[in-house]
Amino acid sequence: MEASGTLRARLYRQLDPRAWRHRGLSPINLVLAWLIVFAAVVGVLQTEPELENRYGAAFVGTELILALIFLAEYLARFWTIAEEPGDTPAWRCRLRFVLSPWSILDLIVIVVSLLPFIVGNASILRMARLARIVRLAKLGRMSDAMTHLTRAVRVCKDELILVIALAGAVLIAAATALYWIEGDIQPDKFGSVPRSMWWAVVTMTTIGYGDVFPITPGGKVAAGALAIVGVGLIALPAGIMAGALSQVIRTGDSVDEKAP
Amino acid sequence: MEASGTLRARLYRQLDPRAWRHRGLSPINLVLAWLIVFAAVVGVLQTEPELENRYGAAFVGTELILALIFLAEYLARFWTIAEEPGDTPAWRCRLRFVLSPWSILDLIVIVVSLLPFIVGNASILRMARLARIVRLAKLGRMSDAMTHLTRAVRVCKDELILVIALAGAVLIAAATALYWIEGDIQPDKFGSVPRSMWWAVVTMTTIGYGDVFPITPGGKVAAGALAIVGVGLIALPAGIMAGALSQVIRTGDSVDEKAP
Amino acid sequence: MEASGTLRARLYRQLDPRAWRHRGLSPINLVLAWLIVFAAVVGVLQTEPELENRYGAAFVGTELILALIFLAEYLARFWTIAEEPGDTPAWRCRLRFVLSPWSILDLIVIVVSLLPFIVGNASILRMARLARIVRLAKLGRMSDAMTHLTRAVRVCKDELILVIALAGAVLIAAATALYWIEGDIQPDKFGSVPRSMWWAVVTMTTIGYGDVFPITPGGKVAAGALAIVGVGLIALPAGIMAGALSQVIRTGDSVDEKAP
Amino acid sequence: MEASGTLRARLYRQLDPRAWRHRGLSPINLVLAWLIVFAAVVGVLQTEPELENRYGAAFVGTELILALIFLAEYLARFWTIAEEPGDTPAWRCRLRFVLSPWSILDLIVIVVSLLPFIVGNASILRMARLARIVRLAKLGRMSDAMTHLTRAVRVCKDELILVIALAGAVLIAAATALYWIEGDIQPDKFGSVPRSMWWAVVTMTTIGYGDVFPITPGGKVAAGALAIVGVGLIALPAGIMAGALSQVIRTGDSVDEKAP
Repeated sequence: MEASGTLRARLYRQLDPRAWRHRGLSPINLVLAWLIVFAAVVGVLQTEPELENRYGAAFVGTELILALIFLAEYLARFWTIAEEPGDTPAWRCRLRFVLSPWSILDLIVIVVSLLPFIVGNASILRMARLARIVRLAKLGRMSDAMTHLTRAVRVCKDELILVIALAGAVLIAAATALYWIEGDIQPDKFGSVPRSMWWAVVTMTTIGYGDVFPITPGGKVAAGALAIVGVGLIALPAGIMAGALSQVIRTGDSVDEKAP
Repeated sequence: MEASGTLRARLYRQLDPRAWRHRGLSPINLVLAWLIVFAAVVGVLQTEPELENRYGAAFVGTELILALIFLAEYLARFWTIAEEPGDTPAWRCRLRFVLSPWSILDLIVIVVSLLPFIVGNASILRMARLARIVRLAKLGRMSDAMTHLTRAVRVCKDELILVIALAGAVLIAAATALYWIEGDIQPDKFGSVPRSMWWAVVTMTTIGYGDVFPITPGGKVAAGALAIVGVGLIALPAGIMAGALSQVIRTGDSVDEKAP
Repeated sequence: MEASGTLRARLYRQLDPRAWRHRGLSPINLVLAWLIVFAAVVGVLQTEPELENRYGAAFVGTELILALIFLAEYLARFWTIAEEPGDTPAWRCRLRFVLSPWSILDLIVIVVSLLPFIVGNASILRMARLARIVRLAKLGRMSDAMTHLTRAVRVCKDELILVIALAGAVLIAAATALYWIEGDIQPDKFGSVPRSMWWAVVTMTTIGYGDVFPITPGGKVAAGALAIVGVGLIALPAGIMAGALSQVIRTGDSVDEKAP
Repeated sequence: MEASGTLRARLYRQLDPRAWRHRGLSPINLVLAWLIVFAAVVGVLQTEPELENRYGAAFVGTELILALIFLAEYLARFWTIAEEPGDTPAWRCRLRFVLSPWSILDLIVIVVSLLPFIVGNASILRMARLARIVRLAKLGRMSDAMTHLTRAVRVCKDELILVIALAGAVLIAAATALYWIEGDIQPDKFGSVPRSMWWAVVTMTTIGYGDVFPITPGGKVAAGALAIVGVGLIALPAGIMAGALSQVIRTGDSVDEKAP
């Protein structure tokens, strides 16, 4: 660790969540987290034609400022990463930072956000809007709670996969059953298994838009059976996760020490 | 503690839940809790034009009586708070009571409820209707169970925030995807991300009114994917809370002692 | 305990779940449980006009046979209850049996089921149809699992009441909000808080029939907020019950011994 | 165990999940699992008339290849099962394999899949499509996670049955209530208890297609009550499973040793 500049060391402790010794996020990271949310909200509102027509210039300005702030954040991280504890030389820390998947993604998002101001291409801007949403995922990366969740998922991974496979099998069976029963009566809705599948997904997740539903007594009995089995299967992942999380929370600290 | 009057001391034990030594609420607090519920029901029924036209006078009378009962409760609490154990002088207990947020809210609700009988302004009455609902929240304040719930929420706060952030990101991603896929086909429903958002919320919470749904195969595949991911994400908070509550209930009493 | 007849003693062990030493229900009780389910199914099918017209006589015959079987069960229970362990004289055991709420309910259902064959009144028969469904609840009484569930509910009773009260407050607040926002635009659907309440219940339970939904942007934002909060609140009872049940199952046997 | 051929012994370790010492599935079983999923997808897509018309020949070819692969798998299992540890002679292992329910099912599916290429009967082919989905269930058999789930279900079996019985009773009661209240107003929807049952199932599982819903104030109150009770009952199985799974995961390994 080269402690050459006090500013760089202090900025490093602000930017790297692992170097922050207090609870929660550091002030700078907190501001950045809210800016990411704000950028997502701006990106969402921009797509509304009415707002775009009225406040188009304001949107372009906000986008430019946000892109520059995130560019500054990227450069600051690149500069301060040299403060990382350990004997790794500064250029190695920086290379590792630049080549990490999250940094590459960040850089792509920044470049794409700035492109329209250089090239002026509107279709790329559209793509950038979605990419910017990925920034929200960075909030997750910043949080310590993710370890709890990922560990709980790892504990019950096999059970979750099994339940999902079971749900998939029930889904296909239900879609096939309705295709047999109502395929000839409502051919546009149940005329093939893929078409019935839309109904099966909408029913099993208990959404029930009401655009597709069985109209014959046989179809209603089959749909009712699927609904009841489906609700039970959907309750299982919640139960599985609860069991795993309750174990992870209880043995949380001791497992932390054992983990590599 | 000044034990001047036996009536005041007995009333104090009835009104202050902390001073009640038996299980549950004291008789007076139980009656008050049911009156709060009754006041909410009256406030709700009053908005129905048919009932208002027929029983308008009865509603006004009931409102006046309820407001006077709650005023009497407020004054009784103000009088008896001096019985609070400890060496604090009576005027200090009373000042603390008057300035506590719940008391201020209570006083506002009482004054606003009585205002129409003094000023006769109907528009303020309308506002009072909602404010009166807040009284229901007092039921929560009266209960000891709230500590269990708030403690469980505190245990898994970070995990909950993370899941909510994740759900928010999935929501925005799904709305953006449908805006791309069906924006040109159903412009009034998916013509912008904010418009798609209504669909995304209605789908992800599995409500599915049926006013908005995708009609193209691509949109249906995207919607089905969101529905399945959404159901999984919605199962997570239940699992997280279950894990936290199971820990809080198990270690409940021991934690109580450690807590300040 | 008077052990006069071997038949009575053996029948007693068959009929009284507490006297049955093996796992599950005794053969006679198992047959009776399925007959209760069968009686419910017959009662349900009988209401369908098409089936009633075609198989009316068969329904009447089945009803009569079922009522006589349940009458025989009642008399058998009345006769064998004298075998109950302890020093209570036989007439006391029988009096206690006859006056227990479940026996009174059973007798009423039997008498009402047999009445139309004596009096021939069709309107009473209609009433009997619902009463017969209560027999299904007897299945619950027969099961040992109920103790687990009731004990778990008792452990987390206060928390459940609190969450239900909270959900009720949110329900009223949401209905009031939509009444303000869309009351003038859709007066038949949101014209009063009780009318909005139908929408609020259908939304918060995530049913979403699609007969009522907000159409203004403001109403959609309020409805979306209710939906998200509602889903969270509905996840809480599942989490609370899971925590309580996990504790009850773990400490199950030890608590059994302590319980009176 | 006769260790005659090295190839057979190695193939046996690849095919029998119990003989595979590493984590997860063996390479061959993994490929077979994905082929089962692929066969299901092909079977689903084949029912779509548009795809069938355009790629009919490709579907027939894919089906033939898949059926031959699964036939080869069956024969390989029949050959290698002799490697099973223990002193059982080879012909006995094979006989046991051939007569096991899963093997019989596998053989039926394979024969039925190959039949149309021999007999050319299209109606049997249709039947085979659904049977092929059963192959997906084999994925579950291959997994160790199933033991966790089945053990958790066994722990809380009685509670689950009780809740399901309770839900069934509530379902019938709700359908009967709506049949009384709205039977005369909407005879095609609530004209009999079986007809109301469709509404009750769609409501209690919170699907809410919107094809059937009460329109009178009384019907709405009854439906709202069912909805709230139904949501609570549906939360129970999730809670029960969570409690049981949390216990199974905690005591998982120790129980494994005790189990026969």
